[in-house]
Amino acid sequence: MNAPLPNEVLPQYARRPVPATMLDALKARFGDRCSTAAAVREQHGRDESPFPVTPPDAVVFCESTEDVAAVVALAAAHEVPVIPFGIGSSLEGHLLAVQGGVSVDLSRMTQLVRLNPEDLTVTVQAGVTREQLNREVKDQGLFFPIDPGANATLGGMAATRASGTNAVRYGTMRENVLGLTVVTASGEVIRTGTRAKKSSAGYDLTRLFVGSEGTLGVMTEVTLKLYPLPEAVSAAICHFADVRSAVDATIQVIQMGVPIARCELLDVNAVRFINAQSKLGLRESPLLLMEFHGSEAGVKEQAETVQAIATEMGGEDFQWATTPEERTRLWTARHKAYFAGMQTNPGCRTVTTDTCVPISRLAEIIDASVSEADASGLPYYIVGHVGDGNFHLAYLVKEGDLAERALAERLSLQMVQRAIALEGTCTGEHGIGLHKMGFLVDEAGAGTVELMRSVKRALDPKNILNPGKIFAL
Amino acid sequence: MNAPLPNEVLPQYARRPVPATMLDALKARFGDRCSTAAAVREQHGRDESPFPVTPPDAVVFCESTEDVAAVVALAAAHEVPVIPFGIGSSLEGHLLAVQGGVSVDLSRMTQLVRLNPEDLTVTVQAGVTREQLNREVKDQGLFFPIDPGANATLGGMAATRASGTNAVRYGTMRENVLGLTVVTASGEVIRTGTRAKKSSAGYDLTRLFVGSEGTLGVMTEVTLKLYPLPEAVSAAICHFADVRSAVDATIQVIQMGVPIARCELLDVNAVRFINAQSKLGLRESPLLLMEFHGSEAGVKEQAETVQAIATEMGGEDFQWATTPEERTRLWTARHKAYFAGMQTNPGCRTVTTDTCVPISRLAEIIDASVSEADASGLPYYIVGHVGDGNFHLAYLVKEGDLAERALAERLSLQMVQRAIALEGTCTGEHGIGLHKMGFLVDEAGAGTVELMRSVKRALDPKNILNPGKIFAL
Repeated sequence: MNAPLPNEVLPQYARRPVPATMLDALKARFGDRCSTAAAVREQHGRDESPFPVTPPDAVVFCESTEDVAAVVALAAAHEVPVIPFGIGSSLEGHLLAVQGGVSVDLSRMTQLVRLNPEDLTVTVQAGVTREQLNREVKDQGLFFPIDPGANATLGGMAATRASGTNAVRYGTMRENVLGLTVVTASGEVIRTGTRAKKSSAGYDLTRLFVGSEGTLGVMTEVTLKLYPLPEAVSAAICHFADVRSAVDATIQVIQMGVPIARCELLDVNAVRFINAQSKLGLRESPLLLMEFHGSEAGVKEQAETVQAIATEMGGEDFQWATTPEERTRLWTARHKAYFAGMQTNPGCRTVTTDTCVPISRLAEIIDASVSEADASGLPYYIVGHVGDGNFHLAYLVKEGDLAERALAERLSLQMVQRAIALEGTCTGEHGIGLHKMGFLVDEAGAGTVELMRSVKRALDPKNILNPGKIFAL
Repeated sequence: MNAPLPNEVLPQYARRPVPATMLDALKARFGDRCSTAAAVREQHGRDESPFPVTPPDAVVFCESTEDVAAVVALAAAHEVPVIPFGIGSSLEGHLLAVQGGVSVDLSRMTQLVRLNPEDLTVTVQAGVTREQLNREVKDQGLFFPIDPGANATLGGMAATRASGTNAVRYGTMRENVLGLTVVTASGEVIRTGTRAKKSSAGYDLTRLFVGSEGTLGVMTEVTLKLYPLPEAVSAAICHFADVRSAVDATIQVIQMGVPIARCELLDVNAVRFINAQSKLGLRESPLLLMEFHGSEAGVKEQAETVQAIATEMGGEDFQWATTPEERTRLWTARHKAYFAGMQTNPGCRTVTTDTCVPISRLAEIIDASVSEADASGLPYYIVGHVGDGNFHLAYLVKEGDLAERALAERLSLQMVQRAIALEGTCTGEHGIGLHKMGFLVDEAGAGTVELMRSVKRALDPKNILNPGKIFAL
C-alpha cells in the first residue's frame, strides 16, 4: 500500500549541464543579468509543487524577445535545456531543472506592448501578471477575466492553459489568447494568430503553444481578449448542510444555462482554514461563493434564479456582497485557501488534485473522494470551480513523511482513475508537468501521447525546450 | 493588370494515382461502396469553389471509423492521397483531387453516437449535418449554434474551423469541439479531448485537428458542446442609408459588450438578389439582420440598447420578427444569398472573399473594398458576420471569362493585403484550401508556415492526407 507510485518521485533523467563556453557567452551578452548564484538558482529550481528543489545551472533575466532568442540560440548550439520561468506558481513541477540547463526568467518583461480598447484586445509581454494587466486596463473600462488565484504571469498562464474562478463564463486561456510571439527551438522568432476575433488560416499554432508548458517554444508576447467591465456585479454566499447539496445546486444552475460568472465550492475544512487565517467569521459549513455580471436587471434576474435553485437544494443564509470592498474580501480569502491550508497545518506541504468531469458526474466523484479522504485520516480541504466540473481536493502531508505522501498519492491516483472513468480529465487547469505524466497516458491513451511526442520531436528536435515535462523523451 | 495571379489557377502537382492492387483491395473490402464511376468521381472532384473539376481515382463510402481506418491503412501502404468528403460545400477547393487518390465519403456516417443532455454535450459521427443535429436535439431543449449557412457536415465544419452567423455570441468550431476520434496517417485510431469542459492535459490536439482541412488526420467522430434553447428569441431588421452607418452601429454594439447572437450585414446588392429570388419585398437599402437570445427581459433589454445605437447611427425602419416563422423566413433568405447571387446572374460563378479584421477596422476595409468593387464594373454583393469583423464580398464573374476572373482575383488580393495591414486574417471561416495558399504566407510569415509544414511532416510523413492543400509539400 505504501509502495512508491510512479507519480510520487522525480523522474530520473540524465543531466545536460551548461558548458563553460556557453556560460561565458551568456555572461558576455547579459552581464549581471546572467546569474549562477546558489540563491538565485535555488529560487528558480522550485515551484509550489511538493517536489524537491532542482536548480538550473544558470538563470538569465530577459528583458525582450531578442534576449530570449539569444539564450535559446545558444542553448540550441550547445544542446542544453531552456526552462521558461514567470513567477514560479506552478503546482506540478514545471520549473524544475530535471536535466539541468538555463532558466529563462521572463518576470522583467512587464510591458503592455499595445492596448486596443476599441477592439477589446491587448498585447502584453509574457512577464506581465494578471493583476498588473487588470490595473492597467481598468481606466479604459476593461478587464481580463482569467483568474487562477495566484498572481501569475500571462506567459505562465498561457503555458499551462490556466483558468480559475471566472472560466465558467469567460472560458480559459484556450479561449482568450488571440495570438503569440514565440521563440522556437532554433532561436527563431515567429508570430501566430492575428488581432481578428476568428480565423481559419492554417493550423491553430496559437492553441498548440497554449498549454504546451514551455516544451514547444518560449512565448514572449501574448495577445489577449479583453472584456468591458460589467455594468453591474454582485457576489453571494450560500451555505449548505453538505457538499452534495451545494454540488447539486451548481449542476442545476449550469444545466439551466444561467450565465453565472463565478461558482466556487468551499468545503467545511476550507472554510475553517480561511476563517483561521483571514478572520472572516464565515459560518463553518460547505458553501458556494458566486458572482454575477451583467446589466443591473440581468444580474438581478440571474441571482433570483440561482437563489431559487439553491433554496430548493436546502441552501441557507443566502447573503449578498454588493460593495466592491466586500467582494474583494471574499475573493481574496478564497484565493488564499491554498496558503491558509498550509499555514493552519504548519510543517505540511500540499498534494493537490485537479480533476475535471462532465458536470453531471461532479457529485459522484466528489462524494467518493470525500469518503476516501475522510477515511484516510489526512487533513484535507476542497475548493472547486464547480461550475466547470473542476475541483481541487488538497491533502496536507507532513514534509518528509513518505508514508503520508504515498497515501496522498494513492488517493490522488484513485481520484484520477475515477475522473477518467467518468469521461473527465486528470487536470482541468494545472497542467501535466512532472507529476501527472503517468495520468496523461491513462487519460489520452498511448497512441495519442505518441502523437504529442511526434509534434514535440518536429518542433524541438534537440529536446532543449523544458525537456522531461508532459512526457519523458 | 490581367496577368495571371498566383491564387487564380490550380497549383500543379505530380499525380499519385491509385494502383490496381489497391483498387482491388478496396473493392474486395467495400464492394459497391467503392466506386470508380465517372459521375461519382466527378461529384467528388468539385466543391463550391470556382476551380475546375478535379476528380479522385476512386470514391469509398465509409460507414464507420473502422472503414475509414481501413482505407487510410491501404493508402498509407501504397502512398496514395486520401481526401475526406462531407457534403462538398467547401468554397476553397479543399475537396479537389489535385494529386489523384481516394475520396473518403463520410456522408453515410450519420449516427448520433451519444447525447448527454445533462452535460450539454453530444458525440456525432462526422457525416451528421448541422440541421440533422439540431433536429435530433431539439426535443431535449438544446441546440448547436454554429451555422455557416450551408447544411454542412460537422466533420467538414470542424475541418475548416467553420463559424457563421451565431459565432459573435457562441464562438466558432474552435470553441465548440470538445474532443475527436481521428484516423491518423498510418490508419491508427486515436481519441483527443474528453467530455470535460476544460483540460490542461498535454498538447491541444483537438484544436490542432480542428481547422487542419483534412491534412493531419481524418476526423470520424466529433464531441460538441450544446446549449439550452434560449427562453426568448427575437430578430430584427434595421435599414441604413449606407453600409458605413450599418458598420458603425455594429462596432458600437460590440464595443459595449451587448451579447447579440447574430449581427449580419447585407448590402443593397445582396438585398436585391435575395428579393429577386425569395420575393421577400425587403426595402432595397443596406441592412443589419440581428438576433437576440436570452430571458424575456434580457432580450428586451438587448434589443432596446441596440435599437438606440442604430437610431443614433441613422438606422430606420427597425422591424421585429418575433414569430419563429418570420425569423426562419429571414434567415433562410440570408442563407440563400450565395445561390441568389448566382441565380440572379446566370452563367456566373462566385469569387468570394473572407477577410476578418479587428472590429474597429471594419468600416475602413469595407469602405475601401466597396469603392474598388464599384469602380471595377463587376457585379458583386456583400454579406457579413460583421459582429465578428468578418465579411464576404462576392464577385460574380462570367464562367470561363478569364479577364473577369483575373480582375476579381486582383481585387481579392488587394482586399487581403488590406486586411493583413489592419492586423486581420485572409480567412475568417472558409479555410485556406487551394485558393489562399499564397495569402497564408503573406499573413503568417514564411517561418510560421514552415512550422506548420514541420507539424504536417511529423503527423503525415508520406503526405497522403489531403495533400497539396494549405501549403505545397
